[in-house]
Amino acid sequence: MKMYRLALIGFGNVGQGFVQILRDYGETITTETGASFRIVAICDALKGSIYQPEGYDPAELLDVVQKNGKLESLPAKARNMDAIQTIVVSNADVVVEMSFTDLKTGQPAIQYVDAAIKNKKHVVTTNKGPAALAYQELAEQARLYGVKFGVEGTVMSGTPALGLATQLLQGAGINKIQGILNGTTNYMLTKMAEGASYEDVLQEAQSLGYAEADPSGDVEGHDAAGKVVILAAMLMDAEIKLSDIDLEGITKITPADIELAAQHNEKWKLIGALEKKDGQIFASVKPTRVPLSHPLAGVDGATNAITYSTDLLGDVTLIGAGAGRMETGFAVLGDLLGIHRTLQ
Amino acid sequence: MKMYRLALIGFGNVGQGFVQILRDYGETITTETGASFRIVAICDALKGSIYQPEGYDPAELLDVVQKNGKLESLPAKARNMDAIQTIVVSNADVVVEMSFTDLKTGQPAIQYVDAAIKNKKHVVTTNKGPAALAYQELAEQARLYGVKFGVEGTVMSGTPALGLATQLLQGAGINKIQGILNGTTNYMLTKMAEGASYEDVLQEAQSLGYAEADPSGDVEGHDAAGKVVILAAMLMDAEIKLSDIDLEGITKITPADIELAAQHNEKWKLIGALEKKDGQIFASVKPTRVPLSHPLAGVDGATNAITYSTDLLGDVTLIGAGAGRMETGFAVLGDLLGIHRTLQ
Repeated sequence: MKMYRLALIGFGNVGQGFVQILRDYGETITTETGASFRIVAICDALKGSIYQPEGYDPAELLDVVQKNGKLESLPAKARNMDAIQTIVVSNADVVVEMSFTDLKTGQPAIQYVDAAIKNKKHVVTTNKGPAALAYQELAEQARLYGVKFGVEGTVMSGTPALGLATQLLQGAGINKIQGILNGTTNYMLTKMAEGASYEDVLQEAQSLGYAEADPSGDVEGHDAAGKVVILAAMLMDAEIKLSDIDLEGITKITPADIELAAQHNEKWKLIGALEKKDGQIFASVKPTRVPLSHPLAGVDGATNAITYSTDLLGDVTLIGAGAGRMETGFAVLGDLLGIHRTLQ
Repeated sequence: MKMYRLALIGFGNVGQGFVQILRDYGETITTETGASFRIVAICDALKGSIYQPEGYDPAELLDVVQKNGKLESLPAKARNMDAIQTIVVSNADVVVEMSFTDLKTGQPAIQYVDAAIKNKKHVVTTNKGPAALAYQELAEQARLYGVKFGVEGTVMSGTPALGLATQLLQGAGINKIQGILNGTTNYMLTKMAEGASYEDVLQEAQSLGYAEADPSGDVEGHDAAGKVVILAAMLMDAEIKLSDIDLEGITKITPADIELAAQHNEKWKLIGALEKKDGQIFASVKPTRVPLSHPLAGVDGATNAITYSTDLLGDVTLIGAGAGRMETGFAVLGDLLGIHRTLQ
């Protein structure tokens, strides 16, 4: 049995989902995998910062934060350390970075990941910022410092789109990637195909909590574009910028467009795509008419999916959750178990 | 760079597909993964048996066998060894078992896998026999002898259904599995949904090489049942027999059945299923009406697919090839690279 001490940077929905997994399934996971996880530090901008080298009971962490919204009533050897101090000073073996995503600067998350690596701590992030804006530098640093850098949660939450490509399809030769990478817009397009208007379905998505009050990150395609950048860096060794992507959101799709697609046995999907052609990479996020016979056409509602076109194996499609508290919490667990497998 | 010496037992379509991959992509694979593969021995019931400790050039192997149908014109240190001798005597690190499948006895493949393990050689098989009839004993033996036993190619050819479940979904808690595990019957059901008769589409499947002259292994569900047994053993730790499976093929589906499903927005699929309920495992292979909204409904033609229902991540579906020379060849490569990852 190998025990990993964890420092959590950020303790919002994803962090609490992950701790809930440890609370409810921790023992089973240890029995099955030989890995156990102990949370020794948490640093959250709103909930406070605690550190105790022996670790915390997951159930107690959840009880306290759900009751008080703050961590301060828990025992601690040190309190009020900032994120960098928590990363550097704590005895954690792995830093789990779950702070807010900023797709413009990637900060402060890039700084946190960098600090973890330079202090020889493995680091796992669910934050698209570091993965989209600095993946290759950070991955190279991690190699130099002999630690692992996991980003599974940044693309399809816990659905292992990155692990599938980097591990199980290694050697298959991925030449093209097409994905439904944003659940909100896929939900909206599904409802629009059933006859709802753009305005009504946007309102519904907002009331369901799928879309933000300012929905532009989803409907203009920026969220999907961030994921395309991550896929390019990880799977096609291509350092592209958000501004390199041929980008179009779903805001201009009309009922007439939807009707026309249906007449041709096609469905509109917001497809993030990468294609290798003559040594170049073409990256786009665009509403695309997908034939009903394509596996992505059947992916409805808030579900995500990705199709890898490969030289040796043809098309391989993975369909699953693209968001959610437990689902993204599972992405953290998946990356941790991936680290455990490579260290055994 | 780590070099693996391989002994191939069986050199039919799959074996030749695998060697073609080494010929065409071997250097790229080595650059990407640090693993290189050298074929030192081949033993095939029809094509003969050769062994040369320094190994063979993949291109030459393919040229000779495609020209002569025999291996005997190739240089060799030893010839005419039988499979067991080849496994025991050769300097191979890994035995790649690709002999004919016998789902009744699992032989002679079980014997070959057993010999490899007891001679401390890793073993990879694409043969459903050993995986369906003796997975748990062989896996336990492999653990005792400190070698790896890979069976990815036995379920969905190179589409990594087993790797996804055992590695990337580790800890997610798989409670139910549903799969389209036989391409021939899925092709037939797809065509029947388009209006073709059972008799016509069976003839067509036979002329395309999808179905055998005696199609009962496919249409009666035996092939899918073998795969359900493998999934049960590997993913649900359940030793079930073929006779434990609630089995029904597609031979009784009528045009009226198909019409009725369509009226209910459903499609007929031959679904292999496993479900954990109250500590028991229920296993079946049955024509099933799947709602069009389910990811498996969109899987048409000879394509295969599997949906894992999990405690932590909801449903995860993988869609891809279920057969084919290069595709099953890739399964061998996938297992070999999996072994390489665990040994690094």
